[in-house]
Amino acid sequence: MINLLNDYNKIAHKNIIDALIKYQDQPFVGYGKDDISANAVKLIKKELNNDSVDIHFIVGGTLTNKVALSSMLKNYEAIICCDSAHINVHETGAIEANGHKLLITPNKNGKVDPVEVKKIYLKHVDEHMVKPKVVYISNSTEFGTIYNKEELIALSNVCKELGLYLYLDGARLSTALTSKYNDLTMEDICKYTDMFYIGGAKIGLMFGEALVVVNDSLKQDFRYLIKNQGAMLSKGFLCGIQFETLFTNNLFYEIGKKENELAYILTNELIKLGIKLYCETETNQIFPVISKQLYEYIKTKILFEVWEDLVDEIVIRFVTGFDTTMEDINKALQVIKEFQNA
Amino acid sequence: MINLLNDYNKIAHKNIIDALIKYQDQPFVGYGKDDISANAVKLIKKELNNDSVDIHFIVGGTLTNKVALSSMLKNYEAIICCDSAHINVHETGAIEANGHKLLITPNKNGKVDPVEVKKIYLKHVDEHMVKPKVVYISNSTEFGTIYNKEELIALSNVCKELGLYLYLDGARLSTALTSKYNDLTMEDICKYTDMFYIGGAKIGLMFGEALVVVNDSLKQDFRYLIKNQGAMLSKGFLCGIQFETLFTNNLFYEIGKKENELAYILTNELIKLGIKLYCETETNQIFPVISKQLYEYIKTKILFEVWEDLVDEIVIRFVTGFDTTMEDINKALQVIKEFQNA
Amino acid sequence: MINLLNDYNKIAHKNIIDALIKYQDQPFVGYGKDDISANAVKLIKKELNNDSVDIHFIVGGTLTNKVALSSMLKNYEAIICCDSAHINVHETGAIEANGHKLLITPNKNGKVDPVEVKKIYLKHVDEHMVKPKVVYISNSTEFGTIYNKEELIALSNVCKELGLYLYLDGARLSTALTSKYNDLTMEDICKYTDMFYIGGAKIGLMFGEALVVVNDSLKQDFRYLIKNQGAMLSKGFLCGIQFETLFTNNLFYEIGKKENELAYILTNELIKLGIKLYCETETNQIFPVISKQLYEYIKTKILFEVWEDLVDEIVIRFVTGFDTTMEDINKALQVIKEFQNA
Amino acid sequence: MINLLNDYNKIAHKNIIDALIKYQDQPFVGYGKDDISANAVKLIKKELNNDSVDIHFIVGGTLTNKVALSSMLKNYEAIICCDSAHINVHETGAIEANGHKLLITPNKNGKVDPVEVKKIYLKHVDEHMVKPKVVYISNSTEFGTIYNKEELIALSNVCKELGLYLYLDGARLSTALTSKYNDLTMEDICKYTDMFYIGGAKIGLMFGEALVVVNDSLKQDFRYLIKNQGAMLSKGFLCGIQFETLFTNNLFYEIGKKENELAYILTNELIKLGIKLYCETETNQIFPVISKQLYEYIKTKILFEVWEDLVDEIVIRFVTGFDTTMEDINKALQVIKEFQNA
Repeated sequence: MINLLNDYNKIAHKNIIDALIKYQDQPFVGYGKDDISANAVKLIKKELNNDSVDIHFIVGGTLTNKVALSSMLKNYEAIICCDSAHINVHETGAIEANGHKLLITPNKNGKVDPVEVKKIYLKHVDEHMVKPKVVYISNSTEFGTIYNKEELIALSNVCKELGLYLYLDGARLSTALTSKYNDLTMEDICKYTDMFYIGGAKIGLMFGEALVVVNDSLKQDFRYLIKNQGAMLSKGFLCGIQFETLFTNNLFYEIGKKENELAYILTNELIKLGIKLYCETETNQIFPVISKQLYEYIKTKILFEVWEDLVDEIVIRFVTGFDTTMEDINKALQVIKEFQNA
Repeated sequence: MINLLNDYNKIAHKNIIDALIKYQDQPFVGYGKDDISANAVKLIKKELNNDSVDIHFIVGGTLTNKVALSSMLKNYEAIICCDSAHINVHETGAIEANGHKLLITPNKNGKVDPVEVKKIYLKHVDEHMVKPKVVYISNSTEFGTIYNKEELIALSNVCKELGLYLYLDGARLSTALTSKYNDLTMEDICKYTDMFYIGGAKIGLMFGEALVVVNDSLKQDFRYLIKNQGAMLSKGFLCGIQFETLFTNNLFYEIGKKENELAYILTNELIKLGIKLYCETETNQIFPVISKQLYEYIKTKILFEVWEDLVDEIVIRFVTGFDTTMEDINKALQVIKEFQNA
Repeated sequence: MINLLNDYNKIAHKNIIDALIKYQDQPFVGYGKDDISANAVKLIKKELNNDSVDIHFIVGGTLTNKVALSSMLKNYEAIICCDSAHINVHETGAIEANGHKLLITPNKNGKVDPVEVKKIYLKHVDEHMVKPKVVYISNSTEFGTIYNKEELIALSNVCKELGLYLYLDGARLSTALTSKYNDLTMEDICKYTDMFYIGGAKIGLMFGEALVVVNDSLKQDFRYLIKNQGAMLSKGFLCGIQFETLFTNNLFYEIGKKENELAYILTNELIKLGIKLYCETETNQIFPVISKQLYEYIKTKILFEVWEDLVDEIVIRFVTGFDTTMEDINKALQVIKEFQNA
Repeated sequence: MINLLNDYNKIAHKNIIDALIKYQDQPFVGYGKDDISANAVKLIKKELNNDSVDIHFIVGGTLTNKVALSSMLKNYEAIICCDSAHINVHETGAIEANGHKLLITPNKNGKVDPVEVKKIYLKHVDEHMVKPKVVYISNSTEFGTIYNKEELIALSNVCKELGLYLYLDGARLSTALTSKYNDLTMEDICKYTDMFYIGGAKIGLMFGEALVVVNDSLKQDFRYLIKNQGAMLSKGFLCGIQFETLFTNNLFYEIGKKENELAYILTNELIKLGIKLYCETETNQIFPVISKQLYEYIKTKILFEVWEDLVDEIVIRFVTGFDTTMEDINKALQVIKEFQNA
């Protein structure tokens, strides 16, 4: 099978496995208090060009979101996010299970519109309604789209104006920052948000997210919160080792860049083949809208996900991962051509 | 001031105060285990024509909703309700604070559409999304509209088909069941829902809701749940005394009927005066859409609530209560006429 | 039956019912924003000799504790209380349901020992354990005992030293402050705690607790929290009316004082009759330790609660209420004498 | 430094790293639905000699306990455990954060006494108190002690009698089952508990616990619960790969056995050197009680944990891990001898 299933279907990038082999005989203190974790933090801070942030490693995006959002909210406070947000659709009520309400605004190409943020805020006038407190965005989004600098600044400004925190879910931050459409830097992310995480599992780590606490008022007792949420790994050094590797020799950017480039090539070729796209390919996720017949043909030859059934047609998702090759792309295109020529 | 503010701005109906006076020297066991509470339960069961339900008295609608919904849900299960639902808008995240996610569907005249319920259900296919488990409706709704029998049966059927509970918030059940548009009986409510509550505070009680647990599978350990939620009143007999009074000599229906009738009269006269309504008056809530000038004029003469600012116009709410008189109605109309004639 | 069951078995003190009658025709704005509630707050502040506190009325002691403790705690922070604490034993996990851990210390005569507070604090050294944050006490305690000024100051001092909040559950604060052993004033309670509540239901109100927020850092958004917990009464003016009455003409103190005095008389007579007590009678709760035979004899003649079965003997509880009379006391004593003389 | 710090200070056992290398080029479906995970489940079921259990892999002991206990409890139900229980002391309120109360009984050598379970159960008589529902034990315990068959059966019997679930935290189940004092089999664990987990991180895995759901009534919707708690790993196959390795060629037992044997040797030699032990060494944890002088001497030469400061003496903990060698043991003993001979 040609594999365009997702960006987390292999154990890890070769460098990660090499690092595990390298460190296998070394003893570490537990719970992330080891030297390698400290070094990983140092490398990330350097990349952020910001020495004053706090960085915590957590296993899993949902758990990271639970920890992050709980650190910012009391139970009567709420999160503004768009309808397509991962926390709204694909976390099985994990955020509400922590006691927090989501206030939903329609997504614009996967993104939150600052004008809508303000509208929601202004509707919540007294203690009979929740008090909006956080805006949740992801970059890249669920549709693989990205925020440009202007958009992020606009959100940041509306948040500052209204006294809201801005939180960015960076499960796929690597592909966002290496998109050809991107004009944001890591430093910008740090500058315009109160907290964000750098996802690892989708760019070649076995697991691990680096949660960056930017806003000073949110730093206190963070390790207590992590432990309380069951999110403190005994062998925390595993995160340290992986993030040290990821932020050595630009691996974080190289993987993202490569994933995007293959996605652009695939996109261009699909368009040439007359395949429509559900939305523009800005990063490593491609959403072809195909006929049921084409779907039936390719599903036994290519691994991919079904995104949405539009009755007449079907939206599918191709994803390029750290190990996707030009050969995979060509083979996938070949399959589609076969169908078209049959 | 002419008082059309809401239906909970006086201490209580005269019969309630008389009952307090009558019972003032009698000692009662606590926590609702007294004889008067037992008698109140008996009277309500008779009204429901159903002896197998369990009935619990709770102070406050939000608290009753917290108890009721928590009895039906695990944290990964969710409530389907419409956007205008009280639990979505006006309970300050109280349901989410208990760990439950709301799945929102657009209201149709304040009501939940069974077709939308099924759509939402079908979208939630696996463990990466919450599992819909309860449909929440209110009758009468936030807009004073009511469910007719056909609509309630349709919802009940879709719930049974999909394995969902149907829960009815009856904060204003009295006015719903005595609406001139109504074709439902108390017995029907019992027949087509799994749980519902009969609100007291809006038809002349000081406070109190009677939560009726219809579905046998939801009855177990209910008093534990009530206490755990902080919802068990030490002087529980106060609820018993009030509900005994409410279900004696048809007071429950008489108050609702009277409130509705005055609302219809007011509505008709408003229409004659050329005042538009935001939605039809089916029960005791009337939503005139008025000019800013009229608003400015009447606000110093009539007590009422502002519902929504439409920029050019303003939606206000008049509510008739157990003690509203024909004189109040006439005076309010007079104020509007004064403005129009000025 | 002679009634020594508890201090919440009658509807309300005569003055309360008179107040309901007096105000029955007056309309009020809802949710405690009415003038009478404002006046009640003013009267209590005067009694506290403290104008800077915030006061909120809540229905029910457990609900008040839920609101109060949630206002002080994040989920990784914990409450230190003694084993006999109401929140530990008799609230069905209501505090834990809000996400908070209790750290238990053995009670000393129903009270928390400051030395033990410090011991517990010092054991909790890092993020693998909860962070102690609140000390919970009640006055009078579950055993009817009271804190004297020295004891309260000692607790206050240890809390300040360790950065802990001191919270006092005053379900029976009236009897505590009117005990013949008491040397504390309302002003002292305010001075030495961060938050406390003045219970109403056990001294003649139908219901209602006045939660006093002393510490400025805990005041923000309190009404949001109350609503989120389902603890905001629509007819909030009912609390205002009752507390206005309670703090008019010293009723708060008079009822407590009377309850205590009858309890002391009963205690003295019981001792004369050779009845042992489980603990000293400091307020309106009396804990006789009696033989099974005496228990069997009196249980059909006197209403009381069983406290603990000691196998050979049985601890029972007599409580004097706002309406207990000298005649009730004499009759109860007469019953015991009958048994002894038989 | 000689390393006797804990049993989770190295990346992983050689076989685990070899397995990662072996599978590195293979694509897997996510979230534990891959074939290797299925095979790991099959291997464990074979070991349990039980094909009807459900097995779920989760990352982290605290998170596993959160998932497991939440699957068994409503908020008004409680967990009985001993004072030294990991969930009581070392999980930072993680279980309470999920809404559950712990009922604490004094430990007997780290274990729960069934007589005490029954006492606690009998004290909880009505809805004013929590309803005990689960007994939590760990094997081996926090003190490295183990339950023998008779003890486990006694607990199982009391649980069945009282309608309680029995849950076993098996963070160190490997060393328990390979202790020279053990007479329990994996099959027994399955037979006498309702749910338990097999810990991986302390016997050579990078991470991972296998949660075994034995009781049929607890199986439903378990993956929803796992996701809701943030405990579903995207690269779930990592757990599958590791547990497949652990249950191949008896690795699970071999590591435990080796750890225990080295611990017994160390224990015997310590005793010969006149070192007292805080409790008997039944598995791989050793608790020497040493003088402050000895402590100061060895702390710069051996990595270990401080357990408790007894003022005059100090309890420390030595732990043997999968990679501890006879040489480590000898070197540690040598250090102590040096001190004694100085």
